Amino acid sequence: MTTTALPAYLSRDAAVAMDAADPLASFIGEFTLPEGVIYLNGNSLGPSPTAAIARLNEAAIEEWSKGLVTSWNRAGWFQLPYRLGDRIAGLIGAAPGEVVMTDGTSLNLFRMVAAALAMRPDRRVIVMEGSNFPTDNYVIQGLIETLGRGHVIRFAEKGEIAAAITDDVAAVVLTQVHYKSAHILDMAGISAQARAVGALTVWDLCHSAGAMPVDLNGCGVDFAVGCTYKYLNGGPGSPGFQFAAQRHQADMVQPLTGWWGHAAPFAFDRDYAPATGIGRMLTGTQPILSMIAAEAGIDIATRAGLEATRAKSRALGELFQALVASRLGDAGFTLGSPANADDRGGHIAFEHAHGYPIMKALISKGVIGDFRAPTTIRFGFSPLYLRYADIWDAVDVLHHIMTTGLWRDPGFAAVDAVT
Amino acid sequence: MTTTALPAYLSRDAAVAMDAADPLASFIGEFTLPEGVIYLNGNSLGPSPTAAIARLNEAAIEEWSKGLVTSWNRAGWFQLPYRLGDRIAGLIGAAPGEVVMTDGTSLNLFRMVAAALAMRPDRRVIVMEGSNFPTDNYVIQGLIETLGRGHVIRFAEKGEIAAAITDDVAAVVLTQVHYKSAHILDMAGISAQARAVGALTVWDLCHSAGAMPVDLNGCGVDFAVGCTYKYLNGGPGSPGFQFAAQRHQADMVQPLTGWWGHAAPFAFDRDYAPATGIGRMLTGTQPILSMIAAEAGIDIATRAGLEATRAKSRALGELFQALVASRLGDAGFTLGSPANADDRGGHIAFEHAHGYPIMKALISKGVIGDFRAPTTIRFGFSPLYLRYADIWDAVDVLHHIMTTGLWRDPGFAAVDAVT
Repeated sequence: MTTTALPAYLSRDAAVAMDAADPLASFIGEFTLPEGVIYLNGNSLGPSPTAAIARLNEAAIEEWSKGLVTSWNRAGWFQLPYRLGDRIAGLIGAAPGEVVMTDGTSLNLFRMVAAALAMRPDRRVIVMEGSNFPTDNYVIQGLIETLGRGHVIRFAEKGEIAAAITDDVAAVVLTQVHYKSAHILDMAGISAQARAVGALTVWDLCHSAGAMPVDLNGCGVDFAVGCTYKYLNGGPGSPGFQFAAQRHQADMVQPLTGWWGHAAPFAFDRDYAPATGIGRMLTGTQPILSMIAAEAGIDIATRAGLEATRAKSRALGELFQALVASRLGDAGFTLGSPANADDRGGHIAFEHAHGYPIMKALISKGVIGDFRAPTTIRFGFSPLYLRYADIWDAVDVLHHIMTTGLWRDPGFAAVDAVT
Repeated sequence: MTTTALPAYLSRDAAVAMDAADPLASFIGEFTLPEGVIYLNGNSLGPSPTAAIARLNEAAIEEWSKGLVTSWNRAGWFQLPYRLGDRIAGLIGAAPGEVVMTDGTSLNLFRMVAAALAMRPDRRVIVMEGSNFPTDNYVIQGLIETLGRGHVIRFAEKGEIAAAITDDVAAVVLTQVHYKSAHILDMAGISAQARAVGALTVWDLCHSAGAMPVDLNGCGVDFAVGCTYKYLNGGPGSPGFQFAAQRHQADMVQPLTGWWGHAAPFAFDRDYAPATGIGRMLTGTQPILSMIAAEAGIDIATRAGLEATRAKSRALGELFQALVASRLGDAGFTLGSPANADDRGGHIAFEHAHGYPIMKALISKGVIGDFRAPTTIRFGFSPLYLRYADIWDAVDVLHHIMTTGLWRDPGFAAVDAVT
């Protein structure tokens, strides 16, 4: 292994210099990461903000153990979906009162698409990208089956979406950043096109919220969902969020009606009556400890700012891409993401025939990315806790694994690279 | 205030003697409760097992901070719904593989009732107790609206249920222990009657799981749901559970199809295919930290045993009832629960025209129960952390509040007694 052929701007010293000039460098100290790990999987599960662990323990003791049931009011548990929703709104171009934090993405998508379909009762087509993270497909397939009214999904890949949005479309349900390739769909353009033919949009922000500026209202989006455990570093399985544009809130209905979405939850009326506003999209009691743990990450994302976050994420990815091209050009890696950083989100995918054992070897050496069948390895560039030098070192490990053939080592069999 | 008129068996000394002979006394030390509080609201939110707080903090550090994304496999996060479901199964008369822990009661009820209705496609009637905790009504009202197939709810109060279960009934959806009065419905008898006319049963165990022996399979129950944050002391909003009898698992379908319920979640297939068994009733990613916090309470309930738990709960309630009758017979309290302890679950309700300010005054004095509009105050007798002397002392505080008129004190205005 040698690095002598590298140009100076791809040297480790250059990476260290970029770290010294990094305006986001101070945020690295706000995360707790294990020694010896370079974490390139924040696009799957974000690491722990140090404040999140402290806050979780404090809430468990002060609010649950000591406050007991009175914490529903005194500690503001009932208000968490709204209060945290408003904070998330500030990260996705939404207004206060347009977002609630609740449940998981799949359930939230069920609600939002059902709401959209109910507003377009005479249309039956739903446009989706079939290669999307498939739970979105599964959710809509289940919804269609449940409704039993002859809705169909019109699957369209990236280049086919524009042609698929015709005037028989009820809802366009798309993920802004693709979970595998990281390609970015044109939210503004697609939403405008949908609007022009009278279709409603439901955007999944799982791979964009916290990773890059998102402007839901600027794009005229109707509904959206997203998660908080990836780029928002909310903790494993932390609840997701749902957005409904203010203009739809008086008319929207949803199928998962429960007491948290009732107009008067403590009147214990026999019959359902929806709350005013976004609250009607809630159902039942929320996992409070998981919600509380998520606030620290939302807070960090807010303070860091999404323009700066996106700029550094882009730079980290470009450095990784250039280093792989320079040092591993003949190792069998094919870029599985758009080559231009403008066109991709916070991670980069590579295809390799031996992707699975290669990722196992990387993880065993402390470089954590992940694998997606059949041949994709993904590296996430979440800039709040990553240094440019980490990127250099990660490629150095990959180079070592490939040049030594270490990935063939059967000792890595027990490592699981699918998460 | 005087206690001289009390018979010896209602003296505080007698209560202390009962504590000395209590076979469950050792469990009291497994909970962390604030000093000076008598907690009679475990039927709403259970207090914290000391082990839960420690385990939560450990998981946050070891599994999230250090294990990062690898904890999905290495720490068994993916298996939590099944592993904890199997532990809950042991508390409700279910077999391994019949229960998963997931989401909240409202969502789980939506799934289970939808599954039941799909198995009775030619029937349109759902029997429910209208005075039940209303989220159950709201969920089914939303489901009916979503299905749009003309289902109707036939509301029947306790004495009317038998007559309501006729051969046009698709599903009988009932709560075993009533949230307000604590009356127990006859699960065995009602389930047998439903079976006889070809209807399916969906039982809500929110107020019975962990409070008393439940025998789902012994009663031939088809489906069930329940929560873990009341008598199972799982933490605020800890996920609930769902039960489907083994005999239905091959045929059942559910509307909330997502990747956690897919036959091969990591194959990332475009189209949905249900997992074998109870797993198909899952939807998406779970709030892991809230799930992990819940295991300590499940463990305690398992070790304590439900026969012993029920026996002590019953005895605590009877003592409370006798003390209120003896000491507050003319204070305006009317029993809002069945008079016979056999007929009620883990709490007792009293009606009082001034219930709301009385409960505020009690809470301000460290006796925590709760209020349900318009006139109900509830006291829960969760026996794992309550002493007989606590019951005596709680009634003593109530006696003090009533005889001094303390409940009229406007200083309690800020206390909220609705939780």
